[in-house]
Amino acid sequence: MKPVKVGLLGLGTVGGGTVNVLKRNASEITRRAGRDIQICSASARDLTQPRICDTHGITLTTDPFAVVEDPNLDIIVELIGGVSPAKELVLKALENGKHVVTANKALIALHGNEIFAQAHKYGRMVAFEAAVAGGIPIIKTLREGLSGNRVEWLAGIINGTSNFILTEMRDKGRAFADVLKEAQALGYAEADPTFDVEGIDAGHKLTILASIAFGIPLQFPKVYTEGISGITPEDVSYAEQLGYRIKLLGIARRADKGIELRVHPTLIPAKRLIANVDGVMNAILVKGDAVGPILSYGAGAGAEPTASSVVADIVDVVRALTSDPENRVPHLAFQPDAISDIPVLPVDDIETSYYLRLSAEDKPGVLADVTRILASHRISIEALIQKEPAEGASSLPVILLTHKVAEREMNAAIREIEALATVTAPVKRIRMETLK
Amino acid sequence: MKPVKVGLLGLGTVGGGTVNVLKRNASEITRRAGRDIQICSASARDLTQPRICDTHGITLTTDPFAVVEDPNLDIIVELIGGVSPAKELVLKALENGKHVVTANKALIALHGNEIFAQAHKYGRMVAFEAAVAGGIPIIKTLREGLSGNRVEWLAGIINGTSNFILTEMRDKGRAFADVLKEAQALGYAEADPTFDVEGIDAGHKLTILASIAFGIPLQFPKVYTEGISGITPEDVSYAEQLGYRIKLLGIARRADKGIELRVHPTLIPAKRLIANVDGVMNAILVKGDAVGPILSYGAGAGAEPTASSVVADIVDVVRALTSDPENRVPHLAFQPDAISDIPVLPVDDIETSYYLRLSAEDKPGVLADVTRILASHRISIEALIQKEPAEGASSLPVILLTHKVAEREMNAAIREIEALATVTAPVKRIRMETLK
Repeated sequence: MKPVKVGLLGLGTVGGGTVNVLKRNASEITRRAGRDIQICSASARDLTQPRICDTHGITLTTDPFAVVEDPNLDIIVELIGGVSPAKELVLKALENGKHVVTANKALIALHGNEIFAQAHKYGRMVAFEAAVAGGIPIIKTLREGLSGNRVEWLAGIINGTSNFILTEMRDKGRAFADVLKEAQALGYAEADPTFDVEGIDAGHKLTILASIAFGIPLQFPKVYTEGISGITPEDVSYAEQLGYRIKLLGIARRADKGIELRVHPTLIPAKRLIANVDGVMNAILVKGDAVGPILSYGAGAGAEPTASSVVADIVDVVRALTSDPENRVPHLAFQPDAISDIPVLPVDDIETSYYLRLSAEDKPGVLADVTRILASHRISIEALIQKEPAEGASSLPVILLTHKVAEREMNAAIREIEALATVTAPVKRIRMETLK
Repeated sequence: MKPVKVGLLGLGTVGGGTVNVLKRNASEITRRAGRDIQICSASARDLTQPRICDTHGITLTTDPFAVVEDPNLDIIVELIGGVSPAKELVLKALENGKHVVTANKALIALHGNEIFAQAHKYGRMVAFEAAVAGGIPIIKTLREGLSGNRVEWLAGIINGTSNFILTEMRDKGRAFADVLKEAQALGYAEADPTFDVEGIDAGHKLTILASIAFGIPLQFPKVYTEGISGITPEDVSYAEQLGYRIKLLGIARRADKGIELRVHPTLIPAKRLIANVDGVMNAILVKGDAVGPILSYGAGAGAEPTASSVVADIVDVVRALTSDPENRVPHLAFQPDAISDIPVLPVDDIETSYYLRLSAEDKPGVLADVTRILASHRISIEALIQKEPAEGASSLPVILLTHKVAEREMNAAIREIEALATVTAPVKRIRMETLK
């Protein structure tokens, strides 16, 4: 069969990795796909920059729209990131009859509904395995491997930067800001780390995973996001003493009244496999009603792990080139006319158990006041630990683990606790999940 | 679109689970596949037996060939297991123009080459995700999710019975035979446990995984298999003290001169995620040159986890019904004419490091003799631990960890060590892998 012709938008880390993988493994890939995959042209912002890949034989341009307009290309691979001009390029490519492969999580999370509608209109495919969890084939696993299941929930470590920071904080007792600086020096964190450490990047990925798991539209604005910048070494250490680890999780759960979509630091039992996923690695735990728990683990970022997913998508698209569009795997796992409008729950309605850390004056009656307030909100206590005050400190830390309660109720209780004269600082609150 | 009509061979654990999952999740599955999937007929050996599933609306027969001959059916799902008559049924179904889904690892490992040739001849699909690691979509992950990679090696806990036994031995210091009896009582092990505990079942699964990973023919007879019946609580405990766990691994590795295919108990560092996969759970670690390490974890057996993979395969087949056969995912990941004849290495040529346990008389010079013999075979020692003799025992245990050496060399050294007058029992030898 004749070769498939690919145009690449972006020749940075992932673009360079994709060129390298396609060249290095060309024979292996052709033995699988049944035909050659040729990168014919590529765009880059600055053609004079040094590259991690050999661009010999590839027509280079600074104009990505020239690539999208090239009538010889079958597939456009979008690796420039960000929303604009990526969105315009992808929409144009589809209009021009090309299939699209992208690693762009923000683009899919924020504009996927529109992009898939365009793909549907022109009978073209948009593949985006690399948009979530780098090299882990989690989109394929959820969308195809678990297609017989009713997914109950999923929970993922889907931001490597945050996981690296939390791992260092636990292993070495270091503070958040200190590790963040190191992560920036190592290239694991951006100069502006907000997207990573405040849960926005994880929120984009969770949006995509939840849509595929439950057959709901992409709706990033409804994801609750809370990052790790408020986590202290004390919290990490108390959690450890209680048999828990703190991880930034993206959680999507089918509850009675709707879907929970939330990213936040979470105490999870240290014995769970996912609690032992350290450093920049990613992992996603999915609970299906038939399969039970499934965990997928691997590198969530980096040139070649991400390229691994990009190339797998290209091969998938190649195989489906001649198939009827209506028989292809739907972009969001469920047929476009079968997407459901189950509501996404406001965070106030979500029920979890909690880790609470209070700073209280070392006076009689404090615990009585706190437990009375919790009881009045029907919050039951699973464990309570009162620590010795630090040398010279007048207040002492009290750690509480609660049973499950609605967030609204917990917030009300916390407001009352913070109003106590004997409580000397805002209550620290971290949600807990058993992941069972 | 009109419903897809399915015939089921076998209504036991997996057959019953498949009926239950397809019925319970019918609307979820149809929302994904775009059409209804109907189980029209099923065969079972004894129609009077109680079933775990409701067979209302399914035409039942004791004759599986009647199902295979039914002209109304699109897909035959073979869940009777064993080689005969499963093989005849599958070949006949393909000849009759039906696609086949099977959970039968022995059938694929032993007769897959012939079955896939038949499928190729009649332009039909054979899907077998459920044949390896139950509900874990590892076939899909390897065959499609990692299609851009050159797979370097894979190592899997792919026999739940053995992993349950090893986990109990470690957690409770129990002996092999004792735990085996419990596993049989719990239904985790067969009355004749040979297939599970001697590595044959794992060998079947490894045969399939290796073929897909490397693009080589299915060649079970070349798999080296060694089971766990010789593992003692002492070995488990010494391994633990040295920072290792013993797991029955199926390992396939691309070495310089060929492919290694081996199933054997293996010491692996306790810190690795896969070392913490306990009980009947399965996990497969794959190292791809682009993606790095990928781990897939989940239930390796059971009615509904296995049914999860069977149903996913049915949905996949439904989606590919109208595709050109030459554009479908090849059965063994690589195009039939691109299967390679890289040799499988004899076990003598395989290099690993080793854990050795010796029983030696408590006399001077024993260690000098042993280390001299190892040195004469160019085997270097990484660690040596001499234990106190047990109360009243005249011999004392010596534990050695070696660096990498060819198995042939190690066997020669062991023969010389066992010939020493001061060595009182056969040397216990367990291979080690860092899985890095």
